[in-house]
Amino acid sequence: MRLARIGEPGAERPVVVDGDTYLDLTPITRDIDGSFLGNDGVARARAAVAAGELPVLGAAGPRVGAPIARPSAVYCVGLNYAAHAAESGVEPPRNLVMFMKAPNTVVGPDDDVAVPRGSERTDWEVELGVVISRRATYLDGPEKSMDHVAGFVLANDLSERTWQLETSGGQWSKGKSAPGFSPTGPWLVTPDEADWRDLRLRSWVNGEPRQDSSTADLIFDVPYIVWHLSQHLALEPGDLILTGTPEGVALSGRFPYLARGDVVELEIDGLGRQRQVMV
Amino acid sequence: MRLARIGEPGAERPVVVDGDTYLDLTPITRDIDGSFLGNDGVARARAAVAAGELPVLGAAGPRVGAPIARPSAVYCVGLNYAAHAAESGVEPPRNLVMFMKAPNTVVGPDDDVAVPRGSERTDWEVELGVVISRRATYLDGPEKSMDHVAGFVLANDLSERTWQLETSGGQWSKGKSAPGFSPTGPWLVTPDEADWRDLRLRSWVNGEPRQDSSTADLIFDVPYIVWHLSQHLALEPGDLILTGTPEGVALSGRFPYLARGDVVELEIDGLGRQRQVMV
Repeated sequence: MRLARIGEPGAERPVVVDGDTYLDLTPITRDIDGSFLGNDGVARARAAVAAGELPVLGAAGPRVGAPIARPSAVYCVGLNYAAHAAESGVEPPRNLVMFMKAPNTVVGPDDDVAVPRGSERTDWEVELGVVISRRATYLDGPEKSMDHVAGFVLANDLSERTWQLETSGGQWSKGKSAPGFSPTGPWLVTPDEADWRDLRLRSWVNGEPRQDSSTADLIFDVPYIVWHLSQHLALEPGDLILTGTPEGVALSGRFPYLARGDVVELEIDGLGRQRQVMV
Repeated sequence: MRLARIGEPGAERPVVVDGDTYLDLTPITRDIDGSFLGNDGVARARAAVAAGELPVLGAAGPRVGAPIARPSAVYCVGLNYAAHAAESGVEPPRNLVMFMKAPNTVVGPDDDVAVPRGSERTDWEVELGVVISRRATYLDGPEKSMDHVAGFVLANDLSERTWQLETSGGQWSKGKSAPGFSPTGPWLVTPDEADWRDLRLRSWVNGEPRQDSSTADLIFDVPYIVWHLSQHLALEPGDLILTGTPEGVALSGRFPYLARGDVVELEIDGLGRQRQVMV
């Protein structure tokens, strides 16, 4: 099942995506948020679809928002593809590297993105995102992780490299949290419809290919990430985990950084496609 | 004016602290959160007190929660006292160091704190916290910052030093986000009642003194911090900024790390006192 939120920012309506049609989820929830996901929302949505209880909203058209309401936290795994670690000039990590983004960076997949004032090194990063369903703390092992995952999303983990790497004493969050820096969606796709072990992820700038890899190359895979984080903090329903980006970003030196007017496109097989104009 | 939230976790009632008495704020707001603070809540509370419109709840007694509902983000400034940078073995930073904590770490000032499983280096940090009133993005200069500050809080920025410094590739958030790791309060104190330029901050473990400094020693002061962050991200009403800790933590090597049964106490003049039992 694919869930989405459509409508203007702050007024998105939750829907089930059924081919080219949207089914209105408002009969069972006001939003796709932690409260919905943490109370068997996905199962209730599935039952409502099967019973034909959701009104048809008609074909696509309005703006697509992020498929989840603002999370309580956005956790990010750094350097989780060996080739990206190499292009960043560092060794692949022995321990999972975690940093955070401001939750108000989460926006729709096709929203314009502002190059922040004073930025000279704004960069793209296509990533597989994991959305939490049930609270997760001290999980017994990675084999328990998928019981706490609502589904997967496509995300662009935008970065300002100078702020991330040079002007915050090595702490990355300052360069990861500018407004609009986490375009997410278009869909939240349930695990039965996305083989997260091997999803092709790609990005383009102005139509030219940049990244092209597979989640099969993740150093720390999805179950390990959820289990590991649960040993250090409490994951909550609706939280978003970005799992890291593969090689092919501007930081490598092989491509120019983003400028106003550039068009960034990203795609993960089965999770949809994004298109952002830099403004 | 001093605001607080009293009652059991998740069911706190907003109050004005009037000497030993609480005045019930529920006639004008359900909670002390971003919506309240961002819509002139402090001014409305002040007017209601002056008009005698708030019912007296009686003397203290019930549990005291954090004085603000869960923020959308907890931003932290690192190494913001020169002597603490020195005891941490690093130079004072030339640029403001920012990292983030999970917002669900914010708990009441006297709640028990669990030493996380597997932790061997749990440490305390007394800090001045700044609570945002109005959204702040691209402020013209530090002189505009106080227009966006609702008030100040006392906070303990607990840390697991191995997770912070050794097992996350240098990214600190993993060792800062365990459940209960940000005791906050007891009060949100408005700027007219707290001279944030020179507040004495102290901490004790089992009654023995640990930290004893003043916010006059901050490398980056409150107006600079709010202005600087606003150039890199959007501060929202109700957000919490922890401004850094002075020297006297266990990381210095001069004191043992926290163990179960230890009692941590913290105080900032005018902002109240905290007492946590490590469990």
